[in-house]
Amino acid sequence: MPLTMNREVFITAAITGSGATQDKSPHVPRSPAQIAEAAIDAAKAGAAIVHCHVRDPETGAPSRDLALYREVTKRIRDSDTDVVLNLTAGMGGDIVFGPTEAPLPLNTAGTDMIGAAARVAHIADCQPEICTLDCGTMNFAEADYVMTNTPGMLRAMGQMMTDMGVRPEIEAFDTGHLWLATQLVAEGVLTAPALVQLCMGVPWGAPNDLNTFLAMVGNVPPDWTWSAFSLGRDQMPYVAAAVLAGGHVRVGLEDNLFLERGVLATNAQLVERAVTVITGIGARVIGPQDVRARLSLTKRAPVTR
Amino acid sequence: MPLTMNREVFITAAITGSGATQDKSPHVPRSPAQIAEAAIDAAKAGAAIVHCHVRDPETGAPSRDLALYREVTKRIRDSDTDVVLNLTAGMGGDIVFGPTEAPLPLNTAGTDMIGAAARVAHIADCQPEICTLDCGTMNFAEADYVMTNTPGMLRAMGQMMTDMGVRPEIEAFDTGHLWLATQLVAEGVLTAPALVQLCMGVPWGAPNDLNTFLAMVGNVPPDWTWSAFSLGRDQMPYVAAAVLAGGHVRVGLEDNLFLERGVLATNAQLVERAVTVITGIGARVIGPQDVRARLSLTKRAPVTR
Amino acid sequence: MPLTMNREVFITAAITGSGATQDKSPHVPRSPAQIAEAAIDAAKAGAAIVHCHVRDPETGAPSRDLALYREVTKRIRDSDTDVVLNLTAGMGGDIVFGPTEAPLPLNTAGTDMIGAAARVAHIADCQPEICTLDCGTMNFAEADYVMTNTPGMLRAMGQMMTDMGVRPEIEAFDTGHLWLATQLVAEGVLTAPALVQLCMGVPWGAPNDLNTFLAMVGNVPPDWTWSAFSLGRDQMPYVAAAVLAGGHVRVGLEDNLFLERGVLATNAQLVERAVTVITGIGARVIGPQDVRARLSLTKRAPVTR
Amino acid sequence: MPLTMNREVFITAAITGSGATQDKSPHVPRSPAQIAEAAIDAAKAGAAIVHCHVRDPETGAPSRDLALYREVTKRIRDSDTDVVLNLTAGMGGDIVFGPTEAPLPLNTAGTDMIGAAARVAHIADCQPEICTLDCGTMNFAEADYVMTNTPGMLRAMGQMMTDMGVRPEIEAFDTGHLWLATQLVAEGVLTAPALVQLCMGVPWGAPNDLNTFLAMVGNVPPDWTWSAFSLGRDQMPYVAAAVLAGGHVRVGLEDNLFLERGVLATNAQLVERAVTVITGIGARVIGPQDVRARLSLTKRAPVTR
Ligand SMILES: [Zn+2]
Ligand SMILES: [Zn+2]
Ligand SMILES: [Zn+2]
Ligand SMILES: [Zn+2]
Repeated sequence: MPLTMNREVFITAAITGSGATQDKSPHVPRSPAQIAEAAIDAAKAGAAIVHCHVRDPETGAPSRDLALYREVTKRIRDSDTDVVLNLTAGMGGDIVFGPTEAPLPLNTAGTDMIGAAARVAHIADCQPEICTLDCGTMNFAEADYVMTNTPGMLRAMGQMMTDMGVRPEIEAFDTGHLWLATQLVAEGVLTAPALVQLCMGVPWGAPNDLNTFLAMVGNVPPDWTWSAFSLGRDQMPYVAAAVLAGGHVRVGLEDNLFLERGVLATNAQLVERAVTVITGIGARVIGPQDVRARLSLTKRAPVTR
Repeated sequence: MPLTMNREVFITAAITGSGATQDKSPHVPRSPAQIAEAAIDAAKAGAAIVHCHVRDPETGAPSRDLALYREVTKRIRDSDTDVVLNLTAGMGGDIVFGPTEAPLPLNTAGTDMIGAAARVAHIADCQPEICTLDCGTMNFAEADYVMTNTPGMLRAMGQMMTDMGVRPEIEAFDTGHLWLATQLVAEGVLTAPALVQLCMGVPWGAPNDLNTFLAMVGNVPPDWTWSAFSLGRDQMPYVAAAVLAGGHVRVGLEDNLFLERGVLATNAQLVERAVTVITGIGARVIGPQDVRARLSLTKRAPVTR
Repeated sequence: MPLTMNREVFITAAITGSGATQDKSPHVPRSPAQIAEAAIDAAKAGAAIVHCHVRDPETGAPSRDLALYREVTKRIRDSDTDVVLNLTAGMGGDIVFGPTEAPLPLNTAGTDMIGAAARVAHIADCQPEICTLDCGTMNFAEADYVMTNTPGMLRAMGQMMTDMGVRPEIEAFDTGHLWLATQLVAEGVLTAPALVQLCMGVPWGAPNDLNTFLAMVGNVPPDWTWSAFSLGRDQMPYVAAAVLAGGHVRVGLEDNLFLERGVLATNAQLVERAVTVITGIGARVIGPQDVRARLSLTKRAPVTR
Repeated sequence: MPLTMNREVFITAAITGSGATQDKSPHVPRSPAQIAEAAIDAAKAGAAIVHCHVRDPETGAPSRDLALYREVTKRIRDSDTDVVLNLTAGMGGDIVFGPTEAPLPLNTAGTDMIGAAARVAHIADCQPEICTLDCGTMNFAEADYVMTNTPGMLRAMGQMMTDMGVRPEIEAFDTGHLWLATQLVAEGVLTAPALVQLCMGVPWGAPNDLNTFLAMVGNVPPDWTWSAFSLGRDQMPYVAAAVLAGGHVRVGLEDNLFLERGVLATNAQLVERAVTVITGIGARVIGPQDVRARLSLTKRAPVTR
């Protein structure tokens, strides 16, 4: 009945993503060295968690090359700056169909649909504290593409993450994804209390109007930890929205390239701006050690081999 | 600010669907004759619209055989009982993956993914007043199945429906599907004001709690016409919920087999029950001619060939 | 996340109220005999609880004559029909101001503002299972009238009710009244879990749109029991709304005179209609013994003196 | 469906109020000179509107002395800093009852209930661009006090404001107050589009949880302009909440004394903080001339006599 905002907030910096943004801003990091440097700068600016994808160092195209993940991990782990590492496990669930009069066979150029073990191989190898689990199948703003994560695949991947002791960050892009996540917890595939990221305003998932957002927040089980973000110019408004509604926040170049209209941002600048908003409304920004304590995360020794 | 319930309500009876329900109730109609008879009985009980799939008359398995659609259409059109005909266009968007360690190649046994023109061939042929358009891609409560309707496919099918002069009933199973529908209208693929069915509580789409439902209702453009339903024992509660929130209703064996716990229902009985609920809360049930006037539908002459 | 409707519902029949309705319908009971008879008929029709005011038997004007309360109580207690008795404690909080250029002194004709003990004297005497506690001060649709229940008065009356062992039914006419009720429980004036009636759409309290209603429902502490009603033609819609949102229902001539447009109702007919709606959406109507068990109510011996 | 935040926001600084806060912070201004200076400083910090009460210059007790209002007005009008002036018309509606066993006669020490013309006399005299209209009657967090504004009084005061050409800022402390405001507009007492302040979390009005807030926002007619605020440590969170939900903001010492825990604020500092939050989430702060254009306000010549 009183405003139940979150007064102790962690920031996840989503450093680079897999979007075709690498040519839209010079600040989108490509190489493991660039990604790690951007992550460390974001941590210095106030991010407790860095969420990383990897890219081909030359082209910037999204990659799932294990060596790249290893290098990013090692560089971040070797840094003097402490931060919780969150690696994507979203790669390898991409289906692209043929033209609308012949959707099958699949378009092999864009399709990248691999087995559960392969999708989490880098997680097993790098042992980040957190990895993502995109908890559903949906259209995006592309004509023939489907982000594909069937219930069977989610059970397989989720169980592997649980067995590895890596905390899944459930990505819910629509209300049904969150519902499925509660089912995976009920089945014991994922452990409660879970960690969920509400991904708002990603076409064609949940729109980011406040009523839809609060309906989703209301469906997060009360003992779970949740964060939320939105895209583009709604990134900073969602910093405030998430805190007001009781959650944590995510910013970074994966979701938004601009500090303000016409001004390209760095990850660190976006984190700084988020800190300004969070502290401006009277909440405190917490760091990686606090996050590990709250989420029962274990920082692994730097990968050595 | 005052309760803006709908006081003039139409009922859609969803007669048989494509679910594996044919052996769970003797009332699930299989043959065109049975489907048409159930549809006519539902109309006599108060349904203004009948939403029909077709099934293999022997096995009850879902079918998209044109001859079956033709026979259902002809029998309903030839009846003395007037009713608005709504045929599904949901068939032919089924993907089933291989096991989780080898999701590709697709499982050919369950996969049925055809081109846009083929998906609406029976619509072109039968010319119902309404046909459905499942406005998204999502998981269901099956391990390896995906209901697949990409944005490209939806644009192709939607444009064909518009060109045919058949009113699409947009099926929105989650908040993002409704958002995509508004995009298709903005693009001119679908014409405004549109007709939308909010499909609540279908795993793993939008859960059917009232906050999620009202968030979706709030995102229906004010000039559109909408209906809503939920499944199983939540079917009758959603008759009330839809009317209270300003919408129309859908009941029938596609969504629910039971009149009450342990008592299998006919379609007509479910419509009768819906009428009881609607009139009990003070609204009026309207018939097919009123629906045609409100939705600018044209009843086509019975198919003859 | 699933629809959490109430599947075991009790009905309160609000038999006569204090409104100036006695000349608008021949069914509004005036004398204790008429009120008791209407209450018993309502119980036979399915009401588990009867909420009674008393009126001057001749004029029908609202009254707080102890003898009238005693007679109503005795007649209901002596009946063969079991029902939970709920007596209003709303009388005696009426302020009417002078004209707008001279609001003071108070208009003594309409003002009836008495002490806490006097306001609950009939409760002490009649020992109903339940009595109402109007949990706030507000305007009604009258120019110069204020329903007046200050926090101090509510603490005094609430403590007396608690000490008597009579369960208060907190009447919340707006969101702030419900908030104050939680404060009274926090202070120990009222005991938890409490019983609350959400009074929706009473000018100038909370409007009865669904968003306001669900916001209030969301603020009822989860262990409390709640019911809701609205007025006039929104009475039956609110039967459905309350059940869908997880609550119990209230109908009766205090809130609505009509069964349908132009058809004056009896209390029993309104209860019957509520039963139709409740059972139509698949819930069960529970009786007085179930209510006593759930609310820890004790039926007192019939008043004898 | 997309986030419909307000990207062009005005700030009202509520400079001093009538609360018993004058001894709790040295920054609460008392004399007209102090109030005007604080108002001008707030305007320099970014407030487009200053909302002023007056106080006894010696004791700091709330006052409705016309000479004090005149001096505040003259000092603000004479300043080189432009700002929209908003004077309270909330004084003179205070009822304090006797003890709970004898609520009448009224406690004359606290009661201050005057006629409509007297309540707006300083508005007629000072001709601010805006004056407040507390649109309801309610309890506050005091045992025997009632803020009293009957429908009749509101019609009288509202009509006077309309006739004077001073824009009323409707203060809605609960959902029913907003409903009554729409009635006053429907009656023509107030002119549409109206200006409303949603006063959230003031005991015992509407609590400030987001669901209640959004339910109220949803009931503001779409062509009205609205602002919102909350109290104490929820003041800055509500700056963000109001902007996210599409509204304008109010901060200042009337509602909150602290910049952060243990740090007493000035009005200007609170405005500065609000500017930081508003710009941090990507909105622009607009000034007095923009506000006058949007609200069709006329700045009157400085009062001379
Ligand atoms: Zn990512
Ligand atoms: Zn269907
Ligand atoms: Zn009553
Ligand atoms: Zn004020």
